[in-house]
Amino acid sequence: MQLILKDGVTEEERKDFRKKISALNLLSFSILDGKNYKITIPSCSEKEIELLDNKDLVEDIITISQSYKLASRSAKQSDTIVDVEGVKIGGEKSCIMAGPCAVESLEQVLSIAKDLSEAGVEIFRAGAFKPRSSPYSFQGLGRTGLEYLSKVKQQFGMKIVTEVINIETLNEVAEVADILQVGSRNMQNFDLLKAVGKTQKPILLKRGMSATVEDFLMSAEYILAQGNNQVILCERGIRTFETATRNTLDLNAVPLLKKMTHLPVIVDPSHGTGIRELVAPMAFAGIAAGAHGIMVEVHNNPDEALSDGMQSLTPDQFKAMYNTIKKIKSVLA
Amino acid sequence: MQLILKDGVTEEERKDFRKKISALNLLSFSILDGKNYKITIPSCSEKEIELLDNKDLVEDIITISQSYKLASRSAKQSDTIVDVEGVKIGGEKSCIMAGPCAVESLEQVLSIAKDLSEAGVEIFRAGAFKPRSSPYSFQGLGRTGLEYLSKVKQQFGMKIVTEVINIETLNEVAEVADILQVGSRNMQNFDLLKAVGKTQKPILLKRGMSATVEDFLMSAEYILAQGNNQVILCERGIRTFETATRNTLDLNAVPLLKKMTHLPVIVDPSHGTGIRELVAPMAFAGIAAGAHGIMVEVHNNPDEALSDGMQSLTPDQFKAMYNTIKKIKSVLA
Amino acid sequence: MQLILKDGVTEEERKDFRKKISALNLLSFSILDGKNYKITIPSCSEKEIELLDNKDLVEDIITISQSYKLASRSAKQSDTIVDVEGVKIGGEKSCIMAGPCAVESLEQVLSIAKDLSEAGVEIFRAGAFKPRSSPYSFQGLGRTGLEYLSKVKQQFGMKIVTEVINIETLNEVAEVADILQVGSRNMQNFDLLKAVGKTQKPILLKRGMSATVEDFLMSAEYILAQGNNQVILCERGIRTFETATRNTLDLNAVPLLKKMTHLPVIVDPSHGTGIRELVAPMAFAGIAAGAHGIMVEVHNNPDEALSDGMQSLTPDQFKAMYNTIKKIKSVLA
Amino acid sequence: MQLILKDGVTEEERKDFRKKISALNLLSFSILDGKNYKITIPSCSEKEIELLDNKDLVEDIITISQSYKLASRSAKQSDTIVDVEGVKIGGEKSCIMAGPCAVESLEQVLSIAKDLSEAGVEIFRAGAFKPRSSPYSFQGLGRTGLEYLSKVKQQFGMKIVTEVINIETLNEVAEVADILQVGSRNMQNFDLLKAVGKTQKPILLKRGMSATVEDFLMSAEYILAQGNNQVILCERGIRTFETATRNTLDLNAVPLLKKMTHLPVIVDPSHGTGIRELVAPMAFAGIAAGAHGIMVEVHNNPDEALSDGMQSLTPDQFKAMYNTIKKIKSVLA
Repeated sequence: MQLILKDGVTEEERKDFRKKISALNLLSFSILDGKNYKITIPSCSEKEIELLDNKDLVEDIITISQSYKLASRSAKQSDTIVDVEGVKIGGEKSCIMAGPCAVESLEQVLSIAKDLSEAGVEIFRAGAFKPRSSPYSFQGLGRTGLEYLSKVKQQFGMKIVTEVINIETLNEVAEVADILQVGSRNMQNFDLLKAVGKTQKPILLKRGMSATVEDFLMSAEYILAQGNNQVILCERGIRTFETATRNTLDLNAVPLLKKMTHLPVIVDPSHGTGIRELVAPMAFAGIAAGAHGIMVEVHNNPDEALSDGMQSLTPDQFKAMYNTIKKIKSVLA
Repeated sequence: MQLILKDGVTEEERKDFRKKISALNLLSFSILDGKNYKITIPSCSEKEIELLDNKDLVEDIITISQSYKLASRSAKQSDTIVDVEGVKIGGEKSCIMAGPCAVESLEQVLSIAKDLSEAGVEIFRAGAFKPRSSPYSFQGLGRTGLEYLSKVKQQFGMKIVTEVINIETLNEVAEVADILQVGSRNMQNFDLLKAVGKTQKPILLKRGMSATVEDFLMSAEYILAQGNNQVILCERGIRTFETATRNTLDLNAVPLLKKMTHLPVIVDPSHGTGIRELVAPMAFAGIAAGAHGIMVEVHNNPDEALSDGMQSLTPDQFKAMYNTIKKIKSVLA
Repeated sequence: MQLILKDGVTEEERKDFRKKISALNLLSFSILDGKNYKITIPSCSEKEIELLDNKDLVEDIITISQSYKLASRSAKQSDTIVDVEGVKIGGEKSCIMAGPCAVESLEQVLSIAKDLSEAGVEIFRAGAFKPRSSPYSFQGLGRTGLEYLSKVKQQFGMKIVTEVINIETLNEVAEVADILQVGSRNMQNFDLLKAVGKTQKPILLKRGMSATVEDFLMSAEYILAQGNNQVILCERGIRTFETATRNTLDLNAVPLLKKMTHLPVIVDPSHGTGIRELVAPMAFAGIAAGAHGIMVEVHNNPDEALSDGMQSLTPDQFKAMYNTIKKIKSVLA
Repeated sequence: MQLILKDGVTEEERKDFRKKISALNLLSFSILDGKNYKITIPSCSEKEIELLDNKDLVEDIITISQSYKLASRSAKQSDTIVDVEGVKIGGEKSCIMAGPCAVESLEQVLSIAKDLSEAGVEIFRAGAFKPRSSPYSFQGLGRTGLEYLSKVKQQFGMKIVTEVINIETLNEVAEVADILQVGSRNMQNFDLLKAVGKTQKPILLKRGMSATVEDFLMSAEYILAQGNNQVILCERGIRTFETATRNTLDLNAVPLLKKMTHLPVIVDPSHGTGIRELVAPMAFAGIAAGAHGIMVEVHNNPDEALSDGMQSLTPDQFKAMYNTIKKIKSVLA
């Protein structure tokens, strides 16, 4: 909860008011500055709000759920459906985004895109700029990669989702991308969030490895606060003590997010597991949990992939998976 | 396991060899480079090592000691189906275990059991002995609770699954229980594991809050090593940094366990989420991920429940959920 | 907070009262039964307690901090000093408990005890019964191990701390042990906690791998509630995503526990790090953080140790460490 | 690295060989059994591999690729001492960086700087640009904040460490800052790492909330790879299941990092605990664990602080703490 005190409030009145808060024995509070005097109180009850709502002193009260005001269900009750030039994310149909981890060559992306397009996939995923933990790992083809993606677009009419890793290359990426992806490592790169918020492009925001669901929504809020409400949330696994899988896919977050926000929620079982054989079962689980779609890595030759080969499906494995996804979706209705 | 190929091995021979590994359908492998060509295969059986130990190609094999011999797929390839006097767990049909967190009164268990029995549930769950973090929390009705459970058995012919919390009361509990539950907090109570291993009862073993999948299988191994191979594994959420849900339900563990072990795997979405509205979606997700069944808390009056009311379904909510579970199961076949 | 309603309260009055609670919009509540009607409300403010304190209905209010009533600072302001036949834990002097992970032979324990005794160590640690994750690991020498420990006692006059793993062997262990250790895996084995609470022996309670500080104190409360207030708390590392060390030693817990409880707090840098070279620096850190003592693994031949050799110090390394510990303690006063 | 000994190697030769490994003072090693005798050594340098590569005994060596070449001890054995115009970080003396979380006003920074300067602090910390989880939180005074920091520099001759949050404002920040801080949320903002790597300024790199020690070193490597080797590593707490403290300060990382890298390591007990009363004990613990310094939040009026007031010390509390830090450091020598 945030209390904003009126302009003319004296130092004396402020001190008295703070004593009142202290007397309520609230867990913690901190005083914020600015033009107005602001007081933030986490975990406050309606009763307490009532007690503190002194009209002579308090200009406004922002309740704590409003740390993600625009993203919350209370701000907008109906589901947001992101419209990518006719392809809808957030509606009745499961949305599938598929493709290789990274653009490796023109032949590679065209070959995979052909298979996926024939299978009915409308959104192609592949990274041109790759953020990598080690400076010595393959960092993506960059601009050349973007060119190859534009060929995929021309040749198969697929929509493109690809990652933007900094403000410098944002415009270049936005020329090719239909959906701008903000990766896990940049989920709290607030400058990048603001910058993509200023574009009119749909944004795919991936959950950070140690982000709570609340952190995740606050990062979405950064984008929404810039006037861009075309945000797709992507659960892709969190970091836990379990090392048998690359990450722990937190599917609890799917129905929880759907309760808390109007934004569409998709699941990435490739990064969420890191193990090829687990991808299909966890894609099924994601859809069954209520996800609006799946983002999945598909490679024509996974064993030779420059990155993430171990978690990539072959086109045939993908097709079998996609069939089952459609069946599960149909019985959930 | 790590295979190191000989220096002179040709590209052709390498490709052939990798096909052989793929054919064995091993969990995952990665190819490392360097002077020698190296292949890593986690969780590999002696049998597979033998098949891969090609002296013409392989210079050395480094085994990773397997700590769960009897529980492993390599020890027994076919799925174990636990037979609870005719009710099967681990086979084609999804197994549902439902009932209140705790036995509270005879009326309560009979009322809930009636509803569940009519809905087709064959296994009734409820705790008579409750392990609680605080010594001042309700600790269960004990022997009286067991008596009430035996009435459920007589009246509705349901099988009973209930928790055993120590060796002292094991015999008493085993007289009523058809399945003995070992709870999360006791997953590494090795003495209790040995004791239940000596009974001929099926055992439901719940994953510990901070147990890796490997720890989980080693605890199952303690039971199997006593000659009891009727063990059902239950994923019920792990402890992570996320506090918006009671636990983080780790559904990755479902397909992973099915790959690693022949034992049946079920999911508990009640403890796995702690939030009533998340229970059904996560039950669907569990089944879609491949679980052999669901353990779920159902209460005739959740708001009055002595424990875990917030995560309990009403009988009507349960019935709606069960219908969808059956539909999902049917399209997975 | 727990509200206990009066005996004669009618169903009608109860319902009205619950509506009142609902109206306060509190985060969650559950209703507990028993002879008295009980209502539990987590995270409640003083203000709300006031509103709910209806003398006509409410017999008693137990505030939530009382989930560990006896262990709390509010119950007892002065530090508890555990007295092990003259050796004090919790007072001015740092208490050192040292010895091998496991009793391996009479020669081994006598050799190590001789070195440690000469260095001024008064409490010898070594496990006779060893709880192990795998059923195929060395499980300790059992009774023979206890006999060897009694020789250490006779020969060097050292006090013995050794782990008790079940109720069956509690009496045997208690005959030799001056301090009964309850291990991490048994921190929530509530039956064992009650059983050791009934002895008059000092208890060393190790924190569970995924236990919060609050869980830890509630487990201590189980012992205290039996009338045994000679409890020593031991921080030994928690399970996190970091795999470079065996556990993450949570030294924050040391000053936090000292604020929350009157019980003495010691640190185990051997299990807390799992790496020999980190043991001394983290022992220093533990003492500097305010711990009342250190529990550390020392082996005369670490590379040949049957368990935990990698984290054991040699007697010479121990002596150097102990000297520095004393110096740090002296400048903290 | 894994060494596989030849079949015919005698017990005698094995013992000699293991002594050789011990003499190299390697981080840790374990001996595996099987047909061959195997020794595993994590994080081993090329130099050490050479020394151990005894063709008479060793059949094969499997290297583990090292992702942080320049940051590793093997690349540079002597400690790096970062020199901030005469103020040294990484040498014998503990380095203290102190100041408020955020620049709030000119009066505030001058008042705090005066107190700290008199206490002997040479490096002043305060944020002008603040990365905040919520878009509605106080985001810092920006350029005005930088101006106020330059006044601190002029008036007290203190060095300034302040956070840089994006490439756009890097030059501006670098004009005032003597040390550029990269915050936890930007630890894997690889573009920012490269950009600060191109400056000649010392860099203070804070560990990410879910970064392993290896991730941390790979991020440092991004900076070093640009030719800037003036990197100070700062442990500031990781995210775990424990919610009683803001973060879990991972002091294990201090001696571990000192073993793995030549870069200086400091500790931030303010963010590492989030609780004022825990700051001093954990600062002592950090120094005792071997940290080269402490970064700590000090505010002249913590209860009125715009951010992080709850974890800030008063100048008097700081002075008392600093005295004890010096004493601890003196007895560690």
